[in-house]
Parts: sequence; structure tokens; C-alpha cells
Amino acid sequence: MHYDDVGLEHVFHPRSIAIVGASAGPSNIYTQMFLDSLVEFGFRGRIYPINPKFTQISGIKAYPSILRVPGPVDYVISLISAIETPQLAKDCIIKGVRTMQLFTAGFAEMGTEVGRSLQEKVVSVARSGGIRIIGPNCVGIYYPAYGMSYCPDFPKEAGNVSFITQSGSYSYFLVRLAATRGVRFSKVVSYGNACDINEIDLLHYLAHDPDTEIICAHIEGTKDGRQLLKVLTKAVAEKPVIVIKRGNTKSGVRGASSHTGSMAGDDAVWATALRQAGAIRVEDVEEMVDLLVTFVFLRCPVGRRAVVVGTGGGVSVRAADECEAGGLNLSPITKRLGLKLQGVVSAPGTMLTNPIDLQPADLDAWRCVIGILDGREEVDMLLWQICPEVEPFRRGLFRLLTIEMKRLDLFKELRKPKAVIVHGAESQVGAETLNTLRTACCEQKIAFYPSVYRAALAISRCLEYYDWRARRAQS
Amino acid sequence: MHYDDVGLEHVFHPRSIAIVGASAGPSNIYTQMFLDSLVEFGFRGRIYPINPKFTQISGIKAYPSILRVPGPVDYVISLISAIETPQLAKDCIIKGVRTMQLFTAGFAEMGTEVGRSLQEKVVSVARSGGIRIIGPNCVGIYYPAYGMSYCPDFPKEAGNVSFITQSGSYSYFLVRLAATRGVRFSKVVSYGNACDINEIDLLHYLAHDPDTEIICAHIEGTKDGRQLLKVLTKAVAEKPVIVIKRGNTKSGVRGASSHTGSMAGDDAVWATALRQAGAIRVEDVEEMVDLLVTFVFLRCPVGRRAVVVGTGGGVSVRAADECEAGGLNLSPITKRLGLKLQGVVSAPGTMLTNPIDLQPADLDAWRCVIGILDGREEVDMLLWQICPEVEPFRRGLFRLLTIEMKRLDLFKELRKPKAVIVHGAESQVGAETLNTLRTACCEQKIAFYPSVYRAALAISRCLEYYDWRARRAQS
Repeated sequence: MHYDDVGLEHVFHPRSIAIVGASAGPSNIYTQMFLDSLVEFGFRGRIYPINPKFTQISGIKAYPSILRVPGPVDYVISLISAIETPQLAKDCIIKGVRTMQLFTAGFAEMGTEVGRSLQEKVVSVARSGGIRIIGPNCVGIYYPAYGMSYCPDFPKEAGNVSFITQSGSYSYFLVRLAATRGVRFSKVVSYGNACDINEIDLLHYLAHDPDTEIICAHIEGTKDGRQLLKVLTKAVAEKPVIVIKRGNTKSGVRGASSHTGSMAGDDAVWATALRQAGAIRVEDVEEMVDLLVTFVFLRCPVGRRAVVVGTGGGVSVRAADECEAGGLNLSPITKRLGLKLQGVVSAPGTMLTNPIDLQPADLDAWRCVIGILDGREEVDMLLWQICPEVEPFRRGLFRLLTIEMKRLDLFKELRKPKAVIVHGAESQVGAETLNTLRTACCEQKIAFYPSVYRAALAISRCLEYYDWRARRAQS
Repeated sequence: MHYDDVGLEHVFHPRSIAIVGASAGPSNIYTQMFLDSLVEFGFRGRIYPINPKFTQISGIKAYPSILRVPGPVDYVISLISAIETPQLAKDCIIKGVRTMQLFTAGFAEMGTEVGRSLQEKVVSVARSGGIRIIGPNCVGIYYPAYGMSYCPDFPKEAGNVSFITQSGSYSYFLVRLAATRGVRFSKVVSYGNACDINEIDLLHYLAHDPDTEIICAHIEGTKDGRQLLKVLTKAVAEKPVIVIKRGNTKSGVRGASSHTGSMAGDDAVWATALRQAGAIRVEDVEEMVDLLVTFVFLRCPVGRRAVVVGTGGGVSVRAADECEAGGLNLSPITKRLGLKLQGVVSAPGTMLTNPIDLQPADLDAWRCVIGILDGREEVDMLLWQICPEVEPFRRGLFRLLTIEMKRLDLFKELRKPKAVIVHGAESQVGAETLNTLRTACCEQKIAFYPSVYRAALAISRCLEYYDWRARRAQS
């Protein structure tokens, strides 16, 4: 099957976009979302605001109808009401439009007969003219390399991750959390009610998309479980596929149904299907971002043997517990390694167990210790745990931060897979410290996590994926 | 048994404190911790810095030895080395000192014969003179109502929670996280190696302390499991006791042992003992603070039936899942209640399922909806979920915040148990929003949580505790 058998290539590469229902009003948030974002992202094709009430919107010439646009219109973003949409679809056929993206809600997700029949009508008109639909009830496409976006604040830099979701909210949620950790996207598609383009089409496309190295999906339900399993299995053979499947519980199922009109289905069936396909199922966005950080920034370790370095007795015990709970092993320091370390660490209170508890100000000891560990065969990865809340003074925290930055300069040179973890940072001062270190890690392209457990879980699941793929390649 | 059979009353109420080893050097962090904190907290007794090299430290007259102090010395904080400590203990006997708090490390926690024998020597000297020891290897007492503190940044306001821990770090960790959420402390004791005063003495004292309504403990191990279980059972009958027992895993056990020289013991034995005693065992500081917030600010609900209100389809599904995973029930909206709500909410996109998805700008609908829910018998509590990351615009976030503040003004008037939850806020802008709402909740004394799951789990465990106490009272 050719990679564009699902016919999505032109959906992602329109020559022009018309925004139907854009408005020059001062508080038109939707115009800002869709029109201003395209301008902000430097969309290279033509942009046509459509509204009979205005001659110009956001500094761009407006037209009363798409039929009055002089050039071709490949892609239409509709902000008008559900009831007006079937007529718009007819106009789109006349104009030769290839994709309609319906931001408009008020269709099947309403759970009413009126909503369902309106949706069916739009679909049947669009199909008759060969038009593909994204939505309704969705924000559409974020594709920074092509200048497409629905949020002016998203990163303009492109990356190797793609994400599909029925929920517009989840697209904001994932892109923002990932951006804060240094992860960038190739394509994000919010596809709402999935009346035409659905998770099956999109997964098939992304599995073959050379710009997508990791696929993320937030799935609320499907209309064809068998086909989804097939396409998912193929995608996983190509690249990691990370899936949020919500609506686990009774209330969640009800919520998903009224959210996008999907059947959420039995959770046990989903769990089995996703496992069979080799997809990595995660709890939610936070865990998804942890896995993305792992795949993007942490070179795959050869095993689970971690050495944790950091400062503080109580928090070292905590770090040890959370590492093992997350699926990593803290190998004990061998006698030989211990003697080697003893030679370079003299400060009292230094514990040569694993986790290794080092005084922060002793940069020489830090350099020597991590240098020795970096060269040891029995160490698969180095994790650096920092708990700013245990620093005796607030003003000490900022002094500490200067030291941590110097330690980071040494840490980033290591050859072993490595990660920085700032944990427990829930006070305001703690959160500021976390933010400073996180930003520095992003700039250095170092994996950063906000909890030891989350780091261990993500690294462990990443290892599971590579194991699974290796086993599959052998069989 | 009288409440001060363990003889700790004078430990908490010294008339004077000497800091042995305080220094006037510019960067003496320990002098800042112990001497400056007492000044900052307005300790009402006399303060005596002891160091033969200085005549004045931090503006206070210094003495070359405690034996040269003119008045009585009740309490000594020792910053001098382990090797000098036995002699200090002898001087303390001559001076009539009643409590020695040894910040000094280098004793049993070293795991060396030298360390162990030094510790035994100090204990035997102190015992011979009737002196009680806190530590060694600890930061001691934070008791704001009495002006005692080892951190100038801790809140000066007193509260109803007390905390005992072997780890000094954990005392900073808990006090800071709790302070950020509005919780205040009566007494915090970091008791390090527990060579004399231990968890059994402290639990006994706090169980009877009228200023302590909730007891928290971070326990790394014990020397007398049977006695601990006995005192714990008695304490739980008086007030909630929340326990962190770390060192669950192999590495954690090793860490705890070298941290304070304790035997961590078998986790299954601990789990059974804590459950039998009725203590609430939590994972770590974050969960402990969630429970504190619940006990302090959330009136105990009569049952588990929660209604969740907020904005956003995808995040409502997430909130529903997490509520149930945490142990609460989202009761479906009854037909009668649904009709009542339908009468006041007209905005399109409003879903009258539970979670209830309301448009944020519609303050009238908000007032009416929460007002109706507040009066319903079938609703046990109201949870307000806010996920700032899903707001379409960053600049919209700050506009949204103004609306949320108005919503908070209405929310705080409700009679039902209620909580505000800002979840997923891991980007920098999200974290700023969380911080603003959290601060507002602290000022209004409203329970605040940083995740729906954590809120549900804490409320659910709080309900379990009250159920357990009611069953116990009947039997």
C-alpha cells in the first residue's frame, strides 16, 4: 500500500487557505486562532478571510464568499454555524476545494438527532465532490515546517514527533508541555468527531511520513477496531507509537461519548489490542511527554542499571525507591568501583552507596565521580537527582543554582545515557529552580524529568519498546 | 500514663539556648541556620553563642565555653565535631543543661566502629547527668509559637500540624510544600540517629499535645517495633497520624541504613503494622501535604459522591478517570437535577453530564450551577478542575485568570466541602497560573490540589480514616 493511499498528502500541503467566518471584531478569538496564526507562522500559500461584512481582516483583503475568491482555494477552515455548513460544502465543491476543516461544533457530539443528521448531510455532500473533512468540532492542523498553526504561541521550530487527537484541548496540552521540555513537532492533527478523516487514516499516513519519527495518539474511541489494530501494528514496526486511551472508568466513558460522539469501548479490549500491536500505552499527557523526552534526548541505554548521583540522605532514599518502583535497577557499587571513588572523594558525609550523595560545592569531586562512572561497564546510565526544597536556605537556593549550572556543564559531556531530575519542587521557589534547570537542559538537549519515578518509568518503558522490537525482528 | 512521662516538656520549652561552635565568619551557614533563626523568630529566652575565637556573633555577646555563661543554659545546640562532643557532654552536666541537640554528624550513621563508639560514649555521659539528646546528625526543633527554628525562611505563623522525621531534609521538604498550600505547624522535630529521643517518645508526646491536631511522621526504621505499634495505636485514637515509611525497595533499605544508621526492616511487616494501628501510610511528602490540606481545609464530606465542574471536553474525561482512580464516585446527574441545571445554562457546548463543562466567561451560569449543586442532597462535594494548558492563547490565560478569580469568589461561599484543582500545569505559563490560584486559595483557606488524582486520593483516604474511627468507636 502506497503511503498516501489514504489521500492525505494534499490535506497537509494546501496552496491556499480560506477562513470562512473570520471577523474583524476586536475580540474575535477564533480569527486570532486561525487567521493570525497562519500570518504569524509565515504560511507561504495564499490566505483568504471570508466574511460579507468586511473588506479587510487582520490587514488581509477579505471576500464575501469563497466563490468570489480569484485564485484556487485548496483548504477551507470553517468557523460558521453547523446549520450553514451543508451550503458551505456545496460552495466548496463548486470552488474545487480539497479539504474542509470544521472548527464548528453542534454536530454528532451533541447526541441529538439534529446534530447527527446535519453531520451526515455535510459528509454526503463533501464525499460527492471528493472533499476530505477534518472534524467537525476540532482545531485542525499544526505543521510548523509548512507554516500551518492554530495557535500563535506554539513553537515555530519543527521537530520529529507527530500527534493525533480528537480533542483540541489535548493538542494544546501536549504541545505546551512538550515544548517546555524541548520536544518539537512535525505534525499535530486535532480531528474532532472524525466524520471522515480518522485515526486509521492518520496513523497510516504518519507511519510512512519521513518527517515523523515518533507517533503520539490520544484516542477516545474508534469505529473500526480491527482496522485500527492492523494499521497500529504496521506503524509500530516503523517507529514508536505512544497512545493515551482515556475513558477507562464509568464516568470517563460517558464523558468521551458526549465529547466527540465516540464509542469509548471496553477498557480491557483496548488494553489487549494496544499491547498486541506493541503500542506504548500511557496514562496521560505528562507520561507521554516523559516518553517523548526519553526517545528524543536520551540515547537508549543498554540495560537497566542506573547510578543515581545527587545531594541529601533522605531524598537519596526516596530516589532509590522511586527508581526501582519505575522499573530500573540501582546496582550496588562494587568493591573495586568503591575504592576508585573513595580515592577522589574525601568530603565527610559522602556516601559511596548508590545513590551517591555528593556535597554540591565540591565540583572537583563531582567531575571525578561522574567521569569514573561514565567509563564503567557495569553502569548503564547516570541519573542526577536534585530536590531544591531540601536546601536549608531560600537565598542558598539561588547560590546553589550557580553551582548546579557548573555541574551541568560537566554532566552534559558524559557519553553514557544521562538525565537530570528535579523532584518535589512544588513550592514557588522550588518551581523557579526547576524552571531554570529545565530551561538549561532544553538548551543542552539533555533529558529532563520532574520526578524520579516518572524518569525511571519512562526510561524503563522505552527499554521495553526496544526489547520488543528486537524480539520481533528476530522472530 | 501522664502525657509527659517521656520527659519532653522541658525539651520544647527551654529558658535559654547556647549554640556551641557558632561563628562570626562571613559564610557560616550553620550560624545562620541556628543562631540567626532564633533571633529572626523572636525566641524569648536568652541566646548564647559559644566560641573562644569571638566576643560577639551576629550582634550577640559570645562566650568561650558554656561554663563561662553567667545564667542557666537549658538547651545546647552543638555544631562542633563528633570527637569533641563527649567533652561537651561533660561540660553540659556541670552546667546543668537539660537537652543537647547534636547537629554534628560523624557518629553511628557512618557505619564505622569509631562512629558507633563515639555515639555510645556521648549517650552514656549524657544519661549519667540526666541530659536528653536530640540527634546526632539532625537539625532539631521548629516550634514557631515558642520562637524556635533552624530556618529563617519558615513561616512564623503557628498551626495545628506536628511532624517528626529522622531526616533534616524532609523537614525542609514538608514545611515548604505545606506552607505553599497554606498549612502551618505546631512542632517539627528532626531527630537524626535517634540515639536517645526517638519516634516512640515523640509520638507519645504529640498524641497528648493539645496544640497538635494532626501528626505526621517520616520513619526510616525503629529499634522497638512492638512499642512503636503500641504508641502509634494510641496516637491514632486521638488524632490522624500520617506516615511516610521509605526504604521499600532493596536500594532504599541500603540508603536508609547509611543515612541514619537505622534498620529499615521488612516492608510487608511495616505495612501490616501501620494498617493495624490505623495510621495513614503515604508514598511521600507530596501525598502527605495533600492529606494535610484535606484534614485542615476540607470539611469532611458525608460520602464519596463528587460533582466535578470546569471547562474543556478532553480534560473533563481525564478528570472523571482520575476521580474514580483516586477512590471517589462521580454520581450521574439525575433527570430532575439535569432539568434544574438546564434551566440556568443556555450556552452551546455546555454538557450536563458529570463532570459539568461550563464556559468560563459565563459567571451567571457558574453562580447558578454551583448554587444548585450546593443545595442537593445527592452531592457530597464539589471539585473545580482547571487545566490552564488547554487555553488556546497564552495571553488568554491571563485574561482567564481574572475570570477565575471572580469564580473563586463565588466558589468560596459554598457550604458543601469543596476543592480547587489546577492540573497538568507543567509549562512555565501554566505553573504561573497554578501559583496565582494556589495563593488565592491559601488566603481563602480553600483546599487546593495540583492534580485531580491526588485530590481524589487524599479526600478518599481522609474519608477512610473517619470511617475507621467511627467503626472503632462502635466496637
